[in-house]
Amino acid sequence: MIKAAVMGYGTIGSGVVEVLDINQSSIAKRAGDGIEVKYVLDLRDFPGDPIQEKVVHDYRTIAEDPEVQIVVETMGGVEPAYTFVKTMIEAGKHVTTSNKALVAAKGAELIALAKEKNVNFMFEASVGGGIPIIRPLNSCLTADEIEEITGIVNGTTNYMMTKMSQEGLEFDDVLKDAQAKGYAEKDPTADIEGYDACRKIAILTSLVCGQQVDFEDIHTEGITKITAADIKYAKAMGRAIKLLASSKKVENGYVAMVAPFLLPASHPLYSVNDVFNAIFVHGNVLGDAMFYGSGAGKLPTASAVVADIVEIAKHLDTNIATTWSSKKLELVDYRQNVNRFFVRTTADAAAVEKVFGSVEYVTAEGVTGENGFITNAMSEAEYEEKAAQLDGILQMIRVAV
Amino acid sequence: MIKAAVMGYGTIGSGVVEVLDINQSSIAKRAGDGIEVKYVLDLRDFPGDPIQEKVVHDYRTIAEDPEVQIVVETMGGVEPAYTFVKTMIEAGKHVTTSNKALVAAKGAELIALAKEKNVNFMFEASVGGGIPIIRPLNSCLTADEIEEITGIVNGTTNYMMTKMSQEGLEFDDVLKDAQAKGYAEKDPTADIEGYDACRKIAILTSLVCGQQVDFEDIHTEGITKITAADIKYAKAMGRAIKLLASSKKVENGYVAMVAPFLLPASHPLYSVNDVFNAIFVHGNVLGDAMFYGSGAGKLPTASAVVADIVEIAKHLDTNIATTWSSKKLELVDYRQNVNRFFVRTTADAAAVEKVFGSVEYVTAEGVTGENGFITNAMSEAEYEEKAAQLDGILQMIRVAV
Repeated sequence: MIKAAVMGYGTIGSGVVEVLDINQSSIAKRAGDGIEVKYVLDLRDFPGDPIQEKVVHDYRTIAEDPEVQIVVETMGGVEPAYTFVKTMIEAGKHVTTSNKALVAAKGAELIALAKEKNVNFMFEASVGGGIPIIRPLNSCLTADEIEEITGIVNGTTNYMMTKMSQEGLEFDDVLKDAQAKGYAEKDPTADIEGYDACRKIAILTSLVCGQQVDFEDIHTEGITKITAADIKYAKAMGRAIKLLASSKKVENGYVAMVAPFLLPASHPLYSVNDVFNAIFVHGNVLGDAMFYGSGAGKLPTASAVVADIVEIAKHLDTNIATTWSSKKLELVDYRQNVNRFFVRTTADAAAVEKVFGSVEYVTAEGVTGENGFITNAMSEAEYEEKAAQLDGILQMIRVAV
Repeated sequence: MIKAAVMGYGTIGSGVVEVLDINQSSIAKRAGDGIEVKYVLDLRDFPGDPIQEKVVHDYRTIAEDPEVQIVVETMGGVEPAYTFVKTMIEAGKHVTTSNKALVAAKGAELIALAKEKNVNFMFEASVGGGIPIIRPLNSCLTADEIEEITGIVNGTTNYMMTKMSQEGLEFDDVLKDAQAKGYAEKDPTADIEGYDACRKIAILTSLVCGQQVDFEDIHTEGITKITAADIKYAKAMGRAIKLLASSKKVENGYVAMVAPFLLPASHPLYSVNDVFNAIFVHGNVLGDAMFYGSGAGKLPTASAVVADIVEIAKHLDTNIATTWSSKKLELVDYRQNVNRFFVRTTADAAAVEKVFGSVEYVTAEGVTGENGFITNAMSEAEYEEKAAQLDGILQMIRVAV
């Protein structure tokens, strides 16, 4: 029997205990041995819960118990998760985490430390919830140069965009609905401003390029400015507005950003709706691929954590190589990125064409008193320069090819 | 430098050599060492080809060269591929293959032999071309009981169904177009009759249940009977007709089949078009997931083979466990499977209702002189029994939930 400990008995942590219980026998078969949770670390006690006898309040109890081989970190946030995880690895224990904040900030360091200690630091659940993407990048798409990785990686905002699209509602109403359903938190900032998606694309980009990508360097826009009128325009174009977290290989490096995009119906991410997530990958020999599934939720996320546990159980004596060095990658300025831009303005056609030249006009049912148009392809820098010359711009949304 | 050999220098085999060349440096980085093709086995010579000096005609040259550690099998068919692969594994060489016929027929045996010899037998490219699905099943979805695995796993037929749907063409015309484009072979039987998809779902089901599933046991229907009128009905229902290869866990085991299905727009596989493939997986804790990408083609398939080579290079001294025993799994009779059925008949409504009770009628633009309807949910056996009592049945297509 392999002994494990779970640090943080919230939604994901209790989900991990539940999944280990529900699928006990098949997991033991695949792991080559049974997995037993010996400790649950939490500030709280859980009287009446089956794990109540296992609750400890001091992480050192786990670190100092040589019987514990695998530690699950599902606390969230950088501290004290970082201190606890580092201590566990230093004590020779394997760690799996669902904590994107920790992985984005300290992934490279913890990977290196784990290698030094000949244990594994795994984080499949940190991006895309239950969707396998970290391990596929690390062990399946290894014949390719990954030229693009673009994801719908935040379930809250995708639910909101889907709802706005299907019911024609305004942002504030949809946010209230998402909060009522438990899909959005009381303070929804991290989701709706794109900060959550930003950390996830930082992790994915780091894995793709093998270096440290700091999330602070990634240009990030959320969905708070999207309106019901924008959705009407999108429908008129046969497109959907999705919050995309994207990174692309360009001539001189990598460019990454998080922003809403107008996606064509032909794009694999177009029909990813509700709380589902998906990650689109373009490899230079593979071509297009996509990984789709539940990007959040107790059991799907716990499924990814437990899959890490199984993988660790199969490699108790071996460090599985992960290419993600601490060397910082300077991202290429996102203003070099070339896109077409959908713009809404109160300016007239003459003024629009004076600045942008020939454009493609779009009209949306019931939207009057303004002009909507799509520019030709140009860099973000060029767009900014031109946009500064046009009065009355109400909205700009990037148009994906 | 790790020495490899490629057996079969056709489309996939030459693609493997090409991918190893194109992405040489990144592959070497991930594999931990460079990969060099030392031999190419083929009946032909390839004068003028960069590999001409490497061509050998006797597989024993490869088997007997201790320098060769990894052998790629891209010949296709069960024999002589089986004899060659078996000899290579017995000689202590790792093998990766793209050959679904070989894997479906001899997978369990070759996995066991590789384990005995402490080498690896990998076959990522045998299902879904470039789409990672074998390794994800083996190392990512390990926390789950896989309750369903349903794929669009044949690019030729998916191209044809897409084309019929988009252009309202009849089967024969679309087949000619697919042959002209090189998507269908001169003898298209294996694709259009579902035999190719059948072998692939046999492989996937074997991996899911861990036992040998014989493809001969899987009820298989192709797409040859689908007509332009069926497509009109599908559109009237807001559905798409797709050739699905599916297996489901049921109370008393697994049931598998290959047949065209009417998919609702809400299903992740609905928008998988053209030559793309996708594999939908439902896990008991993960929920729904899908893997999408290029299911065929020279470079995408070669990408999967080379990813196997990289994984082997990282595990030259270790056999990676694959749970697929030689013990045969008796599939549950597909006639126990419960579906709704779309039926077209020249019989009148009174006759239809006398047999099937209340049904949901469907009308399609321009289709007259017949009744189209969807039955309530019932087992295949029950449907067969009822259908035998109704005269004038023109068509039956299963309706996916």
